[in-house]
Amino acid sequence: MSKSLEFLTEALRRLPGIGPKSAQRMAFHLLQHDREGADMLSRALHQAVEAVHHCALCNTFTEEDVCDTCDDEQRDRRLLCVVETPADQLMIEQTLTYKGLYFVLMGRLSPLDGIGPKDIHLEKLVARANDGVVSEVVLATNFTNEGEATAHYISEMLKARGLKVSRLARGVPVGGELEYVDAGTIARAMLDRRST
Amino acid sequence: MSKSLEFLTEALRRLPGIGPKSAQRMAFHLLQHDREGADMLSRALHQAVEAVHHCALCNTFTEEDVCDTCDDEQRDRRLLCVVETPADQLMIEQTLTYKGLYFVLMGRLSPLDGIGPKDIHLEKLVARANDGVVSEVVLATNFTNEGEATAHYISEMLKARGLKVSRLARGVPVGGELEYVDAGTIARAMLDRRST
Repeated sequence: MSKSLEFLTEALRRLPGIGPKSAQRMAFHLLQHDREGADMLSRALHQAVEAVHHCALCNTFTEEDVCDTCDDEQRDRRLLCVVETPADQLMIEQTLTYKGLYFVLMGRLSPLDGIGPKDIHLEKLVARANDGVVSEVVLATNFTNEGEATAHYISEMLKARGLKVSRLARGVPVGGELEYVDAGTIARAMLDRRST
Repeated sequence: MSKSLEFLTEALRRLPGIGPKSAQRMAFHLLQHDREGADMLSRALHQAVEAVHHCALCNTFTEEDVCDTCDDEQRDRRLLCVVETPADQLMIEQTLTYKGLYFVLMGRLSPLDGIGPKDIHLEKLVARANDGVVSEVVLATNFTNEGEATAHYISEMLKARGLKVSRLARGVPVGGELEYVDAGTIARAMLDRRST
């Protein structure tokens, strides 16, 4: 195989979830059927690496010092929602139920993978949450073991500094039939039941 | 989401088998955890698009006029093996049983996808096979419907020009247990049985 092709296959393997066979298939596909796409991807990667960094306030990806969301005057600056990734933030935005600001951890605590408090920018979060304006921090990390542990850790840390901390409600999903919901979720929904 | 990030996500979707969620995950991963990899991929793509083209003889990807295999004096120039992709050629090379040359179609006949004889460079193959040195063409396209149709088409075309054409043997795979081999394969193995 030619040197450039080997280098390309090797580079494609850096993408998450791509093994040697997929990388080879992608390289052949781009060179055979979509050189324009390869060129576009090359430029997009270069441009993103050059231009994209972290928002000074919320830590998400942005090309400015402060991202559009943090810069938005219409937002309720007393609410700060903590999410693991920009994708999670997008999902919450799509619900149109939250008008506060965000903090994006860009990860979750995961001791087994060597990801500790420093790697998810908790110092930056503490400084952000203690700006004197934020009155409630809403923890919206995932409801996985690691996400729950991360929420617990952050909760303890912020409550020690006198901040009000809340967590997204757990319970039966909208449209969920009890017969098909797992027992853990029903147990939690029972414990957290609300008066109507 | 920032412009550069949107552009990158869109560009990653040009990769075969990558949908919007995967593209987003890849973009976030590269920017968060592997900017060096992103940079490397950008350069690899640019370099490959610039440098890689088709071998004048066998049609595979190469950076020279003629690829290393076609240029190899040790090869038996009377044998020409036709494969669909460079990956197939690599597989055959790994068997160490074939010392002839190759012709890489870079595809297969597939009328439903609009892929006709021109798209798989059959004119170039005919010219190559009629160089006066090649005495046998070994068809090693896949044993799928499309690969079989491609082999049949090429076989008729080359036999009409007086060339000897052969096809890889079909039969029970090495290590195969009859109980678990499909009936079509066993039927073919029965028809093609060899005296011992």
